[in-house]
Amino acid sequence: MKSFASDNYAGVHPAILEALSAANTDHVPSYGADSYTEAAFAALRSQFGEDTHARLLFNGTAANILCLSALMKPWDGVIAAKTAHINTDECGAPERVAGIKIIPIDTKDGKLSVEAIAPAVEHLQGFEHARQPKVISISNVSELGTLYTPEETRNLADYAHSKGMYLHVDGARLANAAAALDVSLAALTTEVGVDALSLGGTKNGMMYGDAALWFDKAAEEVKAGSFMLCKASSMLGSKMRFLAAQFSAMYGTELWLHCAARANAMAQRLADGLPDCCEIAYASNEQGGQLANEVFAYLPKDVIEPLQEKFHFYTWEEGAGDTDCVRWVTSWDTLEEEVDALLDALRAACTCC
Amino acid sequence: MKSFASDNYAGVHPAILEALSAANTDHVPSYGADSYTEAAFAALRSQFGEDTHARLLFNGTAANILCLSALMKPWDGVIAAKTAHINTDECGAPERVAGIKIIPIDTKDGKLSVEAIAPAVEHLQGFEHARQPKVISISNVSELGTLYTPEETRNLADYAHSKGMYLHVDGARLANAAAALDVSLAALTTEVGVDALSLGGTKNGMMYGDAALWFDKAAEEVKAGSFMLCKASSMLGSKMRFLAAQFSAMYGTELWLHCAARANAMAQRLADGLPDCCEIAYASNEQGGQLANEVFAYLPKDVIEPLQEKFHFYTWEEGAGDTDCVRWVTSWDTLEEEVDALLDALRAACTCC
Amino acid sequence: MKSFASDNYAGVHPAILEALSAANTDHVPSYGADSYTEAAFAALRSQFGEDTHARLLFNGTAANILCLSALMKPWDGVIAAKTAHINTDECGAPERVAGIKIIPIDTKDGKLSVEAIAPAVEHLQGFEHARQPKVISISNVSELGTLYTPEETRNLADYAHSKGMYLHVDGARLANAAAALDVSLAALTTEVGVDALSLGGTKNGMMYGDAALWFDKAAEEVKAGSFMLCKASSMLGSKMRFLAAQFSAMYGTELWLHCAARANAMAQRLADGLPDCCEIAYASNEQGGQLANEVFAYLPKDVIEPLQEKFHFYTWEEGAGDTDCVRWVTSWDTLEEEVDALLDALRAACTCC
Amino acid sequence: MKSFASDNYAGVHPAILEALSAANTDHVPSYGADSYTEAAFAALRSQFGEDTHARLLFNGTAANILCLSALMKPWDGVIAAKTAHINTDECGAPERVAGIKIIPIDTKDGKLSVEAIAPAVEHLQGFEHARQPKVISISNVSELGTLYTPEETRNLADYAHSKGMYLHVDGARLANAAAALDVSLAALTTEVGVDALSLGGTKNGMMYGDAALWFDKAAEEVKAGSFMLCKASSMLGSKMRFLAAQFSAMYGTELWLHCAARANAMAQRLADGLPDCCEIAYASNEQGGQLANEVFAYLPKDVIEPLQEKFHFYTWEEGAGDTDCVRWVTSWDTLEEEVDALLDALRAACTCC
Repeated sequence: MKSFASDNYAGVHPAILEALSAANTDHVPSYGADSYTEAAFAALRSQFGEDTHARLLFNGTAANILCLSALMKPWDGVIAAKTAHINTDECGAPERVAGIKIIPIDTKDGKLSVEAIAPAVEHLQGFEHARQPKVISISNVSELGTLYTPEETRNLADYAHSKGMYLHVDGARLANAAAALDVSLAALTTEVGVDALSLGGTKNGMMYGDAALWFDKAAEEVKAGSFMLCKASSMLGSKMRFLAAQFSAMYGTELWLHCAARANAMAQRLADGLPDCCEIAYASNEQGGQLANEVFAYLPKDVIEPLQEKFHFYTWEEGAGDTDCVRWVTSWDTLEEEVDALLDALRAACTCC
Repeated sequence: MKSFASDNYAGVHPAILEALSAANTDHVPSYGADSYTEAAFAALRSQFGEDTHARLLFNGTAANILCLSALMKPWDGVIAAKTAHINTDECGAPERVAGIKIIPIDTKDGKLSVEAIAPAVEHLQGFEHARQPKVISISNVSELGTLYTPEETRNLADYAHSKGMYLHVDGARLANAAAALDVSLAALTTEVGVDALSLGGTKNGMMYGDAALWFDKAAEEVKAGSFMLCKASSMLGSKMRFLAAQFSAMYGTELWLHCAARANAMAQRLADGLPDCCEIAYASNEQGGQLANEVFAYLPKDVIEPLQEKFHFYTWEEGAGDTDCVRWVTSWDTLEEEVDALLDALRAACTCC
Repeated sequence: MKSFASDNYAGVHPAILEALSAANTDHVPSYGADSYTEAAFAALRSQFGEDTHARLLFNGTAANILCLSALMKPWDGVIAAKTAHINTDECGAPERVAGIKIIPIDTKDGKLSVEAIAPAVEHLQGFEHARQPKVISISNVSELGTLYTPEETRNLADYAHSKGMYLHVDGARLANAAAALDVSLAALTTEVGVDALSLGGTKNGMMYGDAALWFDKAAEEVKAGSFMLCKASSMLGSKMRFLAAQFSAMYGTELWLHCAARANAMAQRLADGLPDCCEIAYASNEQGGQLANEVFAYLPKDVIEPLQEKFHFYTWEEGAGDTDCVRWVTSWDTLEEEVDALLDALRAACTCC
Repeated sequence: MKSFASDNYAGVHPAILEALSAANTDHVPSYGADSYTEAAFAALRSQFGEDTHARLLFNGTAANILCLSALMKPWDGVIAAKTAHINTDECGAPERVAGIKIIPIDTKDGKLSVEAIAPAVEHLQGFEHARQPKVISISNVSELGTLYTPEETRNLADYAHSKGMYLHVDGARLANAAAALDVSLAALTTEVGVDALSLGGTKNGMMYGDAALWFDKAAEEVKAGSFMLCKASSMLGSKMRFLAAQFSAMYGTELWLHCAARANAMAQRLADGLPDCCEIAYASNEQGGQLANEVFAYLPKDVIEPLQEKFHFYTWEEGAGDTDCVRWVTSWDTLEEEVDALLDALRAACTCC
């Protein structure tokens, strides 16, 4: 049975398995000096533009750390939402592996804005006893399921550049964001000034793999050292072709969109079907568009536990009153009937409407 | 065409691909809380004994760092051969990721012995201005293709324990060592007092994956924290089942032995067929047994380059005279005719015999 | 002229200079194996109890890092006020030097309480993807000039211990806190369950030197490794006797109290003399006792700049309205007439009262 | 009684104490924004040239780490003698604090030469799986008491620059080297191409303090970030004037030379007076000049222990035969009669000559 706990619970899209199998021919050089890796890089350039420099990595934490540390000096810091994955869900790997300091900013919905970060940036820049804010890191989709539009992203990029900083996007679910907003991947990144991107693969139907990408000026700056930074951070894969084959299959075609759109549609179906007593949290869909693949909602506390006996999902935050906030995540392989079963169970459990 | 450059150039054994495909069913919990991971742990316990604690990782550098850092305090050091992979081929990842200091020991053949390390250990222990030797790390197969017998390993383990230290084995090619010596994996590790093991998978026919294992007392000490140490080191995989399925296929069966024995046999075939002017280096097979899957040999310099135009392999070390030392690595999929083709070309290029 | 910018601007108390001179006799062993260091440790034990383990360090950042890192595993975190020195004024040294992650908590006055930290502690404990809260770090005096009473400290220590955590006090100005509250140093630390203390010296009249102290169970745990942790963190002084002589002069006598009480009295004199338009910030003295040696106050913006031309002090925070918050720090050597001169200038600049 | 164990056992030269006392006037800005620090920087420029950038630090380990890390990327390494202080006597602080990897080179006398390092440099440069050699670090005086002449230093600098590398000098005893060779401090550093220098103070009569210096191109590169790197490494002193005053007293006058020359003369007196059975080790004075302030000698084993009951000095290395190598260190304050007393006792203990 499908879970609503995490898109990491899902398996691998058949096209990815096929690509892995197709890449399993004869010997090829290791560590990326092979034609599969070249093809993957070309696929990424086709999405993000010619001035893209990439490293293919095993997981998203590695992608975030590599993206950030390549752009930072030991005295620099990263501005991020307090709820950001790098701040709350990576067990301090950025601190341990790369000595990174994260400067967390409170948000109401997981999203940064120029208004929210400017006081910290302006307070810190030039104060030599504090880490210098050098990178703004946003997650699109955010950890609260909300989305940054191209315009919102550009505002942050423009601000970053005006302050001599970079804008990084943690795009573990960038495909879902692009599908929800009905724009290209570039429209959320290179077209609006993003400097570095952690591009997700695993959550969207790959077996393993997330990439660190740098664009334009940032790409120029990091490309000479990125291979060695990757190796010195223990993140270098040897049989690189199998990472590469997945990225080509995902981003050299429209598979990324196909998988993300399906997951998003299932989240929307779920949100649309919620009984009245369930209030969507974080105004996830206020952009007027479709949801990405996460639904956060306040549920009566007594409904949650019985529901969790049948369906796997997480309580996100305990509420003060008689509701808690839960998180449902849909995946590339979630079925309509699975959503409907959840909704049926929810309605059955609800005593109020 | 098969390469003799590295076993990382090889593809994936069909049984591994099948296992990956078979694991691709429905949703399962991520990060290791799934039945595939349980099965992989059981497979590893069946090889190494019940008191085995394991973490499944993406690559060998991560396995080495996790094995070592879990056993070390910030003021501890690792005794290793100067030629050890952790010292020469990991771009200082142990230093960067975990602040590890390696104390390199000169060897003639890549192998440590009690005699070789005792002076350093005894000089350093108790001298509070130097890192305290806490782990002895050996590679079996060593970086020079040589092997540690069970007895040699036990001598080092006994010495380590007599000094309050641990013995770690970098077993990126442990399967090849066991196959060459015709002993079990346990005979080279848990049966002779080894405390921690980096267990290879990738080089022996897996797509990706190496494991960090701790045994007995060491397992007791690290198991409460190993998940978080893994996460805090950016090494945690999300769709863990696909790592696990490979380990089960490899170590829950005799696939590890099958693949390693094939690779070893091809190395032996190569060594046996060398013309007289090619001298085996590092006396790789002096134990009287079969070679593992690497052949190091001194070749006349003028023979090497033409040969490298047809076959991919590395010059390991420049020689002083008119020979250089080359390294040939065979893989689980190397064919007899491929070895023979190399030998034919070598004999053709040789002008002396 | 005396500054009101920082107690780091002050010089050295004559008794400290005398102690340095008196220690300058003949040769003594380096790195702490000398009678001066023994005497300093005895002086610290006389203040904090027999079960005190100490390392004498050059500065407060080092003391904080050593105190904390000795008590933490790589996957542990530190709960601290967002305004804590370790979070805002050490340029991320805890992150860089020791991979520490700080989990900042919002406060209104720089002080943590059980109520303020419990949600974070309870959310994080047992969640293996996040650093585990292991140490609560408070500053007494806090960075906003406020004080923790013994009872407030005990509440935090009891909570920490109930959760398997430690309580650390950043006591760069602990002497000022004790003097203000008219209690002993132990009353703010060992008598109320504090586990580790960064004990200030430099700010209170020493030339250089802050100490890392651990107490009772924590002392037992860290003492075997603290020398080497200190050395491996680049913090070990060679001519230790000169650090030790200062600590003996400061904490083996009542000099710490004499210096702190003088500084505090000058702050109180300043606060008492403020014109009505200057509002004390952070209710620094709400405990009903004397202020420590810092006064935070909201001043009309147009008053500040002319005043800063004559007196050195910092604007702490820009206000939204027509006032900014300034910080005045008094020192062991501040004179009454210097306070009065500041007050006179302030009254002269004020156009409203 | 004076010790021959270490120049760290010595006290502080009276002129340094006077300078500390003289600097103890009124308030001055902290962290180096004061006239004393300006004066110290000017004194250092007067010794090393106008294009000198400096940070004043508490100890030599910090100076080494700051010098090196400012010049290195995370994938760079340091070539050093196996016996170098950074490799053997800093408890792995370079690894822990800054993730530095040291590539140790065997030497016969503690000194590197182009011949000794070229194989490692050439093997590693461009091999992306290994740290890239970026800095050559030599110690002058070396840990074995030997000296680099200006010409030897220039050879290494030229080689370093030809390979895109830097030359760093660990000059904890640079004053002794200069005095022994009868050259200026610049003659051993800036005049022969040295890029970075850890300049000792503590061992030569200061109370505490060693400096990190960068020259010319290296100074240009690091100066914008060195303050923050220092702070982020927990090495920044607050009452900087007291560090500065010592450096001015030491290097703004000829005090450095006076102290070093005295210590060296005492070492020479000791070496000259040794009985025939004591063989000078490491050919310390083969440059034909005076010794620096260390004498290494092979002594009959049965002589050493009785002598150590009267005089404090270290056995440096156990010998294979019936002699061990001992180290005697003289200090700025060693007296002729103290040397003579040691020689008398040595002659009395010797049964052979």
